[in-house]
Amino acid sequence: MAGICLLDSLEEAMALEVRSRIYYLTPAETPDTRTLVALVRRVLTAGVGMVQYRAKGLSTRRMVQDAEALLALTRPARVPLLINDRLDVALAVGADGAHVGAEDLPVPLARRLLGPYALLGATVKTPGEARQAERDGASYLGCGPLFPSPTKPEAPVVGPEGVAAIQRTVSLPICVIGGLTRENLPELRDLRPELVAVVSAVNDAPDPGRAAAELVAAARELWG
Amino acid sequence: MAGICLLDSLEEAMALEVRSRIYYLTPAETPDTRTLVALVRRVLTAGVGMVQYRAKGLSTRRMVQDAEALLALTRPARVPLLINDRLDVALAVGADGAHVGAEDLPVPLARRLLGPYALLGATVKTPGEARQAERDGASYLGCGPLFPSPTKPEAPVVGPEGVAAIQRTVSLPICVIGGLTRENLPELRDLRPELVAVVSAVNDAPDPGRAAAELVAAARELWG
Repeated sequence: MAGICLLDSLEEAMALEVRSRIYYLTPAETPDTRTLVALVRRVLTAGVGMVQYRAKGLSTRRMVQDAEALLALTRPARVPLLINDRLDVALAVGADGAHVGAEDLPVPLARRLLGPYALLGATVKTPGEARQAERDGASYLGCGPLFPSPTKPEAPVVGPEGVAAIQRTVSLPICVIGGLTRENLPELRDLRPELVAVVSAVNDAPDPGRAAAELVAAARELWG
Repeated sequence: MAGICLLDSLEEAMALEVRSRIYYLTPAETPDTRTLVALVRRVLTAGVGMVQYRAKGLSTRRMVQDAEALLALTRPARVPLLINDRLDVALAVGADGAHVGAEDLPVPLARRLLGPYALLGATVKTPGEARQAERDGASYLGCGPLFPSPTKPEAPVVGPEGVAAIQRTVSLPICVIGGLTRENLPELRDLRPELVAVVSAVNDAPDPGRAAAELVAAARELWG
């Protein structure tokens, strides 16, 4: 049981000296902690730069257990672990931060709960939302869906132009998300996003570790 | 947006000078905030002594909205509002406390997140669990189900003898829960529980306000 602790000086790390731009999001459902740990161990070995734990319909107790098990992997790898939505879980395990979307805690409240140094991602879709999230204390902005996404096919697409407009408005690091694959990654060359969130491209791949490694290599080739 | 604040000196209030022993738990599902507010307004008028907000399958944003709306009712009434399970919601709105069960945050973590003064309820089923929860920082102990409950028919019953055994073990206030109605309340006369949690007996009643008022009167008649 880790307890509240850290969330201290990662804001600096968020000048994005993370080891790669590939930001791995766990599946929303995994049968048990052991399966999740095996999966995340493989994508960490593949070189992803950041991990986000997501869970739908699990008990808080199970989420805490999952998040603690993931921290035991990400800490030695010096890879930040963020928790989606559930700041209680993030605080309970002492994660490196959290990500909030439109249906989660408002950004100012999330920042107050996490303290000044934790990583706090916020989902935005427009330059106006981006400016507001920056003022409200977000550490990075998740922009998407960039392309139609298998996990959220109904969501209106932001597109590369939408992301470019957000980039011109704010100075925060940008995380693109939604429908990203090794094949369409080159279309983002000029955007130079600080983070590229991947979900289906890794989790639905026959070999998630290999898929993650290929994405890490592709990002490195495009942006160094 | 209330923000983190209070959770300060309610521990004293938990010497249980709450205005009645009836502890009202909201339905796990309500169609919207407005419906929930109308319901809670009626049970507050009926004289309940404490309120717990529960929600299943709602977004965090909606839970925060619900909890803020309820606080706007409970604060003027000087009735403590606790949040079930979700400490992020409790902290975000500055509720008076939280209640955790076996599938929620462990009691020591919950206490650390809430700070020393918030009300923290913990569900226990045995004297051993009760002792542990007391050591871990619980403010009161939820014991049940006392009788077979319509909301949790499969749960093994603790029964009045089980509660009595817990009372002999710890000095914390005891909240009995599970299948309690105006009809079987007299069976608890000798237990003298500090709190009587009611769910179905109010929420499934044709007139929840009236059902709550009758329970408040019955508790007052039994225990003053």
